[in-house]
Amino acid sequence: MPLPSKRGIDIAASPIRSLLPYADAAKREGRHIYHLNIGQPDIVTPLEAREYLEAQKAPIVKYGPSEGLPELRSAIATYYDKFSAGLTNEDVYVTTGASEAILFTLLSCCDPCDEVIIPEPFYANYLGFADVAQVDIVPISSYLEKEFSLPEPDEFVKRITSRTKAIFLCNPGNPTGQLYDEDQLYSLIQVVKKHNLFLIVDEVYREFCYDKAFKSVLAYEGIEEQVIVIDSISKVFSACGARVGCLITKNRDVQAVVNKYAQLRLCPPYHGQQLALACYQNPEPYISSAKEEYRSRRDSLYELLSEIEGINYYKPQAAFYNMIELPVDDAEAFCKWMLTDFEYQGATTMLAPASGFYFNQELGRKQVRLAYILNKEDLRAAIICLGKGLDSYKKLVQ
Amino acid sequence: MPLPSKRGIDIAASPIRSLLPYADAAKREGRHIYHLNIGQPDIVTPLEAREYLEAQKAPIVKYGPSEGLPELRSAIATYYDKFSAGLTNEDVYVTTGASEAILFTLLSCCDPCDEVIIPEPFYANYLGFADVAQVDIVPISSYLEKEFSLPEPDEFVKRITSRTKAIFLCNPGNPTGQLYDEDQLYSLIQVVKKHNLFLIVDEVYREFCYDKAFKSVLAYEGIEEQVIVIDSISKVFSACGARVGCLITKNRDVQAVVNKYAQLRLCPPYHGQQLALACYQNPEPYISSAKEEYRSRRDSLYELLSEIEGINYYKPQAAFYNMIELPVDDAEAFCKWMLTDFEYQGATTMLAPASGFYFNQELGRKQVRLAYILNKEDLRAAIICLGKGLDSYKKLVQ
Repeated sequence: MPLPSKRGIDIAASPIRSLLPYADAAKREGRHIYHLNIGQPDIVTPLEAREYLEAQKAPIVKYGPSEGLPELRSAIATYYDKFSAGLTNEDVYVTTGASEAILFTLLSCCDPCDEVIIPEPFYANYLGFADVAQVDIVPISSYLEKEFSLPEPDEFVKRITSRTKAIFLCNPGNPTGQLYDEDQLYSLIQVVKKHNLFLIVDEVYREFCYDKAFKSVLAYEGIEEQVIVIDSISKVFSACGARVGCLITKNRDVQAVVNKYAQLRLCPPYHGQQLALACYQNPEPYISSAKEEYRSRRDSLYELLSEIEGINYYKPQAAFYNMIELPVDDAEAFCKWMLTDFEYQGATTMLAPASGFYFNQELGRKQVRLAYILNKEDLRAAIICLGKGLDSYKKLVQ
Repeated sequence: MPLPSKRGIDIAASPIRSLLPYADAAKREGRHIYHLNIGQPDIVTPLEAREYLEAQKAPIVKYGPSEGLPELRSAIATYYDKFSAGLTNEDVYVTTGASEAILFTLLSCCDPCDEVIIPEPFYANYLGFADVAQVDIVPISSYLEKEFSLPEPDEFVKRITSRTKAIFLCNPGNPTGQLYDEDQLYSLIQVVKKHNLFLIVDEVYREFCYDKAFKSVLAYEGIEEQVIVIDSISKVFSACGARVGCLITKNRDVQAVVNKYAQLRLCPPYHGQQLALACYQNPEPYISSAKEEYRSRRDSLYELLSEIEGINYYKPQAAFYNMIELPVDDAEAFCKWMLTDFEYQGATTMLAPASGFYFNQELGRKQVRLAYILNKEDLRAAIICLGKGLDSYKKLVQ
């Protein structure tokens, strides 16, 4: 029997989905699971957009243009006006989720063995896509004690080699829930300019910034040709399953290459694009209302966490994630134990162990990512359950 | 300004979509275009499946399981019973079109620089996906004069090296429209067994075989663990834009690896999967009726081609493609000229130049691929238009 590829055997499994078998078993036993592990919003997808999609009665579900439906590209370009992005339709490539936009970006900017510098912790799947593209990730650690602020420009500079093609950021951050300081970002942009790199920024959480206004990298002057932005409707419009995202760049040479990768997979999904079109044509008041809901949960979560003893945490400024450090030796073992052995009032809480969000996994050994994608009542119950779990676990391992 | 990747610059543009700018220009001039260039069926997507999708009123378009919706995996496994495939749900991975299934297969079976042997001409995008996966394609030529029959087993054997991981077939063939002889395929399977290779077969056109019954590689005994089948709803159910396909394998080790690539991109599109579910649950009489329509067009096309002087052609047995050799020096130049300079009764015909379907492009220099995806009246007009075009072109270049 022939063996699978070595790269396939070696690639890491998703830290977000890896505990799923234990969760499934817990459900079969009748325990309720509070899912804080995955960024699947519980807010409903815009009703008008769903109705718009239903109203489409095309008799044939045809291939669309590889670059995305023209009316959708146009709606996305217009949506970006509020971020002073100055986009034309040609700058927008519709992709099958942000996932595909990440892959296309790495393939289009980097050759095998090229390097991309990324602050860690980062969205775990960047590692997998870098592996598919045979690109080397060069991490720079950021720290919970510093609330995961952007590392100093010097930290980036000293990692730049002849193979460095890009700096890759996630802003606002997944898994950190943090928004980078504008002045610090400006300083980093000077590095990007000076060293003639690409600046790839995953901005899928940009609409959910609670304390400060968001400034897109698309709005900075003088690096227009170096910026690539990754975006998605999944979080902003609670439409994760539609699989619609986009890749934005004003660099014509990159556009020409992205276009070939886009043609290779023929086109993004038709239904998701129709849904996305209706979303982008009427983004308000939906987005503001979702943002207020998440802000209020963020505030609740912060209060709830203050009642758990021994954890380290901070108040995240954006997105719907929070990284916290638990008073345990191995957060992954604790998360698994919560699913296999613990219940409080018939329920348990599922968390994402943080080590998978780090290149240097040891840095995340005691941390977990919480996604506040439950209504406030459930969120409260989930955090109380977590606290009770920590109490029991402490007694168990003592 | 940083430059795009060399691999991205070097990758070939789609031969099927590359002439589109000329077609767009012709349309703007008011000429009608008969599209014989792309495999976009004109048969309507099953009405019941579209209605089923509309009836789904899930308030949140959520992430689904990475491996596909369980009810869809089950419906696909059941559909395969008629091919004696003996599948369980675990053998079926739902993908974002056959495109993604091809990529996952190459990534899961091959490491960079591994080799895959493929008879040419082949579906052009295999080359692009091999490039993404950094896999080397080793072509074996097949010939129009031999009606593109499967090359002899010896031809495969003499190309096997220590880096060969798989033999990759498209059966029925795109772009050839041919069905491989069962005895010949059996002989090749002995080679696959003996040399412990994977046998990857793209069977997306299996339902459209007009002269002989189709036998899936999944039905052959003794190579169950070596076979990977690529499939899609795009052609069978005229739902190209839904972006739903699947990867089928009984090899548990390969399944484990595919699962990780599937988790990396989170999930296939929700709406397309709902549509696919309804399609697979009620495949008849839809499929039989589509097949009869294509058969009848195949017969018409064969008659129509007999009236064009100087071409070489054959009667394809399957799919909805036909490769023909034109009495011109450079088919691509002719196809472009048809779009830029020719019209007959206010219309012109768009064809796919065949060189892009060959690794050794020279072999396809005089050939084009026709897709008979127009109703018979339009098909007749398109072929008459092609004949008139060839007449005019002959006078022009003499």
